[in-house]
Amino acid sequence: MANKRLGIQTVKFDNPPTIAATASIVGPKEGQGPLASYFDEILEDELWGEKSWEKAESKILKETVNKVVSQGNKTNSDINYILCGDLLNQCISSSYAIRDSNIPFWGLYGACSTMAESLSLASIIIDGGYADNVIAATSSHFCSAEKQFRFPLELGTQRPLSSQWTVTGCGTALLSSTGNGPFITHITTGKIIDMGIKDVNNMGAAMAPAASDTIYRHFEDTGQIPSDYDLIVTGDLGYIGMEITDELLIKLGCRISDRFNDCGVMIFDRERQDTHAGGSGCGCSASVFAGYLYQEIIKETFKRILFVATGALLSPTSIQQGESIPSIAHAVTIQKTKE
Amino acid sequence: MANKRLGIQTVKFDNPPTIAATASIVGPKEGQGPLASYFDEILEDELWGEKSWEKAESKILKETVNKVVSQGNKTNSDINYILCGDLLNQCISSSYAIRDSNIPFWGLYGACSTMAESLSLASIIIDGGYADNVIAATSSHFCSAEKQFRFPLELGTQRPLSSQWTVTGCGTALLSSTGNGPFITHITTGKIIDMGIKDVNNMGAAMAPAASDTIYRHFEDTGQIPSDYDLIVTGDLGYIGMEITDELLIKLGCRISDRFNDCGVMIFDRERQDTHAGGSGCGCSASVFAGYLYQEIIKETFKRILFVATGALLSPTSIQQGESIPSIAHAVTIQKTKE
Repeated sequence: MANKRLGIQTVKFDNPPTIAATASIVGPKEGQGPLASYFDEILEDELWGEKSWEKAESKILKETVNKVVSQGNKTNSDINYILCGDLLNQCISSSYAIRDSNIPFWGLYGACSTMAESLSLASIIIDGGYADNVIAATSSHFCSAEKQFRFPLELGTQRPLSSQWTVTGCGTALLSSTGNGPFITHITTGKIIDMGIKDVNNMGAAMAPAASDTIYRHFEDTGQIPSDYDLIVTGDLGYIGMEITDELLIKLGCRISDRFNDCGVMIFDRERQDTHAGGSGCGCSASVFAGYLYQEIIKETFKRILFVATGALLSPTSIQQGESIPSIAHAVTIQKTKE
Repeated sequence: MANKRLGIQTVKFDNPPTIAATASIVGPKEGQGPLASYFDEILEDELWGEKSWEKAESKILKETVNKVVSQGNKTNSDINYILCGDLLNQCISSSYAIRDSNIPFWGLYGACSTMAESLSLASIIIDGGYADNVIAATSSHFCSAEKQFRFPLELGTQRPLSSQWTVTGCGTALLSSTGNGPFITHITTGKIIDMGIKDVNNMGAAMAPAASDTIYRHFEDTGQIPSDYDLIVTGDLGYIGMEITDELLIKLGCRISDRFNDCGVMIFDRERQDTHAGGSGCGCSASVFAGYLYQEIIKETFKRILFVATGALLSPTSIQQGESIPSIAHAVTIQKTKE
């Protein structure tokens, strides 16, 4: 029987996996942002010597996986599984990145919620005794995403103020059955929520109800309160979605405002790097997590955080056919010490 | 520590989950094939009252999920998780199918390996005590797949003889922590294998090396031999891929020929329904599993099978950019009794 469940959507781990290492590689624009010093590598251009943006994205993911393996003092043969996905059609960034790794692979699709989804499933696999070392990873690329989801970059189309800027970047995490933390202690898995928003240039508004639902459910399930966390960090709602989420939670009697931030808000400088509503893309929350958040947890700036990655599960086809935007958010509790 | 591992890529379950129910819905062509009597519902046309093929595919998946919940005598609130994915860009068949279900959702992308991937992860989640009821599901649709991956159907493009026919259909399975079987006892998770094949009209050849690698690895890891199974069934290699897989395994000293079949070979009549190299698509192995295989395991025609779903992890973009086809196969042991 399911003795590891807590409430309706949450699991509590008996053997919390350690995040033994993380790695991040980002593009040039991200490397000019306020979190630059936290990334392992900053690219000089968006192509990194490749002939297409898709190949560049796949290379970024491949090299960030290689980096986390070596930073964790492992070799590929030590890794039992890799869980990974991305935004490109048929998740080709992931499959081409992983194909030479010789690591058993489970492909995921959670749009920009993928980092939390991969961390959640990797944690279950390790806590349950099915693996000793699992990699969770995801990537995105500004140019490949614009090309696929919006307009050819060459058109120079004007972006609405509510639109977010897809991050070029990748974050990977190596989870292990042994180690000294940081630990993943809880996961709260989201349901799909669709409040009828159809504006693809306002993803933050579309995802906010899913974010607030999962955060609210996390506190209901665990009996914890917001002050049990030093930081509750969503990714990637941007400025608009973050504000809506905050308001929705206040209506539910759950005040997180004084410890709430968003990876899409943090990764770019609002004044200096005008990206309109902030950053987005799987690689946004992944690189902010693998870079800034992980390092600040190690330093105990944050002893305990709730990492909530959010995804908009639309496609250009579904929008062209008049559909609204289904969204999802998954939450992961990460803390420096086991208890 | 990972005490549930067996060899390099295999897990053996201490508390094998029961497949409490399955459900399947297929299109009209599949309903004229040799397995017609095993499907729960056969559609009269490819649109099922919807305005697009994508919406029709999503409806098929939604209704097949509803069916497995009711056939398992459950309600949606009894289901802890649903794991599901499909072939459409951004997996919209799944996200729109699940959005009203109120069930915590993990999206997968494994191309046509998705049914085995979802069964594998669902089994881990139940065996490990993280859930009591989990749904594994996937779908495909001939028309939405042709439109997205190949040519507009209206063109009437001639298909090469090595091409396979994407199944319109869906299979779902409800896995539970308690029940009388059939049980999932082992899973062997595949690595991505890419032998350099670039012909998108010969997916069987591209996927055969992944299928043979996972099957070989399963026997190496478990110490079992082919005669421990009544049936080893891949999906969806079709005629060409099945023959290559058989030959590759013989070269490795692993003879499965006398108990080997393929969902893509079984679902259509070769003479009467000329589909060239056989069936394919996530929905092929899913519907054959949920229909024919599940019912024949219940009847003990097969007391024990190895279900090996295979996926080609390409996209039209990756092929246009000159890439070859990375493939993967995941294996799941299903048997009538626990021991």
